[in-house]
Amino acid sequence: MLSKNQIKVITSLQQKKYRKQHGLFLAEGIKVIQELLNSNFELHHLYVTEALFKNVAKDKIDYITEQELKKITALNTPNNCLALFKIPQEREITTDGLMIALDDVRDPGNLGTILRLCDWFGIKEVVCSNETVDIFNPKVVQATMGSISRVNVVYTDLRDFLGKAIQPVYGTFMDGKNLYRSDLPAQGIIVMGNEANGISPAIEKLCTQRIAIPRFGDLQQTESLNVATATAIILSEFRREEGKALS
Amino acid sequence: MLSKNQIKVITSLQQKKYRKQHGLFLAEGIKVIQELLNSNFELHHLYVTEALFKNVAKDKIDYITEQELKKITALNTPNNCLALFKIPQEREITTDGLMIALDDVRDPGNLGTILRLCDWFGIKEVVCSNETVDIFNPKVVQATMGSISRVNVVYTDLRDFLGKAIQPVYGTFMDGKNLYRSDLPAQGIIVMGNEANGISPAIEKLCTQRIAIPRFGDLQQTESLNVATATAIILSEFRREEGKALS
Repeated sequence: MLSKNQIKVITSLQQKKYRKQHGLFLAEGIKVIQELLNSNFELHHLYVTEALFKNVAKDKIDYITEQELKKITALNTPNNCLALFKIPQEREITTDGLMIALDDVRDPGNLGTILRLCDWFGIKEVVCSNETVDIFNPKVVQATMGSISRVNVVYTDLRDFLGKAIQPVYGTFMDGKNLYRSDLPAQGIIVMGNEANGISPAIEKLCTQRIAIPRFGDLQQTESLNVATATAIILSEFRREEGKALS
Repeated sequence: MLSKNQIKVITSLQQKKYRKQHGLFLAEGIKVIQELLNSNFELHHLYVTEALFKNVAKDKIDYITEQELKKITALNTPNNCLALFKIPQEREITTDGLMIALDDVRDPGNLGTILRLCDWFGIKEVVCSNETVDIFNPKVVQATMGSISRVNVVYTDLRDFLGKAIQPVYGTFMDGKNLYRSDLPAQGIIVMGNEANGISPAIEKLCTQRIAIPRFGDLQQTESLNVATATAIILSEFRREEGKALS
């Protein structure tokens, strides 16, 4: 049985301010929770409507009713489980290899999808501007499908970070060099921009390499790609040569 | 001033049954409506809170209040305009070139994003199984960002369609051939599967070419790609050689 205070604390975690205050975040759904349990994340407490997970200490599980779950879920259609995990300390950024930098990506679904892509393509680091949506937002955690446990996400002043970077900084612009004709390195930073405005002028100045995804069809149309699908195409192209060697 | 009956008809268009009955679909937001006005779609009626569009016949525009718009919108956060367009007759499928076939894609956002990708990569035809989400679902129309006016979408019995196809039929499977090492043709059908289950067994049998997007990193993890991002990677790779020649 959940107390009023428990419900209040858990639902407050939908807001960044309270996540920070309590040092906790919400995860829902069997797949996401299982991936987090298998990772280095530390479980704070687990609420389930039935026995779903093995190897969890008994004092960390509460069995609740579906009605109670409805009171604490952040989803429109609640699952059968909800977990609270401790927000870990931010790790330092390892600057070798390929890295994604996000300049003000606001949509939780996009950030989650980008993290899944990073996980798939073996990208270990995502550096976010402070204005980018919080990685511990429940909708982001949900959309990552567990990738959150395998990719290091750091928030920082992106201008400052890129200004000090010694690696090449790639940005996508209409007038950039055709991606398919570019020599793409195994080390570097790929900047992806805001959903509506793209890469901001201050960050654009710090991009040392301008690339473009060629567009087919009628050039009069104003169409653009969604930031997550653009990230998919760019990462695939950066990883292409190395990917050939995989089975 | 909107009548009760108008409100009833417009909101009913959120359901496929009533879209079919009235032969109309909903579009919201300036960008999407403008793209549809510029296309071959026929406007039935336009509801705006202010003067937003030029060259629309006066008898097809109603000026309404924000309160009235809230009563007819299909969005959580309504825009300042909503339009009804006539559902056109399905065009026949042109079978040359590259084509996407969707085997039971259920998420409106995914279908919309896939249509945007087709538009970007110059794919003119999308063949959907009858179980795939309706292209005139308001959430799909919204997510296409206007691409709906440039890509021909047809619903059919996919098994029947693929059974009769003379082009190669590509499907993505775990044990498929590495996409980056495959010779990909300029003509063919690329099948993308359901969000949870992938390509169904009956459709799998009709795939003549099995491909795979190589995965980097830890192979023990069970991660998969979202169907829209997988489509982005596959289309980029199919179009790569031709794309090199673009500016």
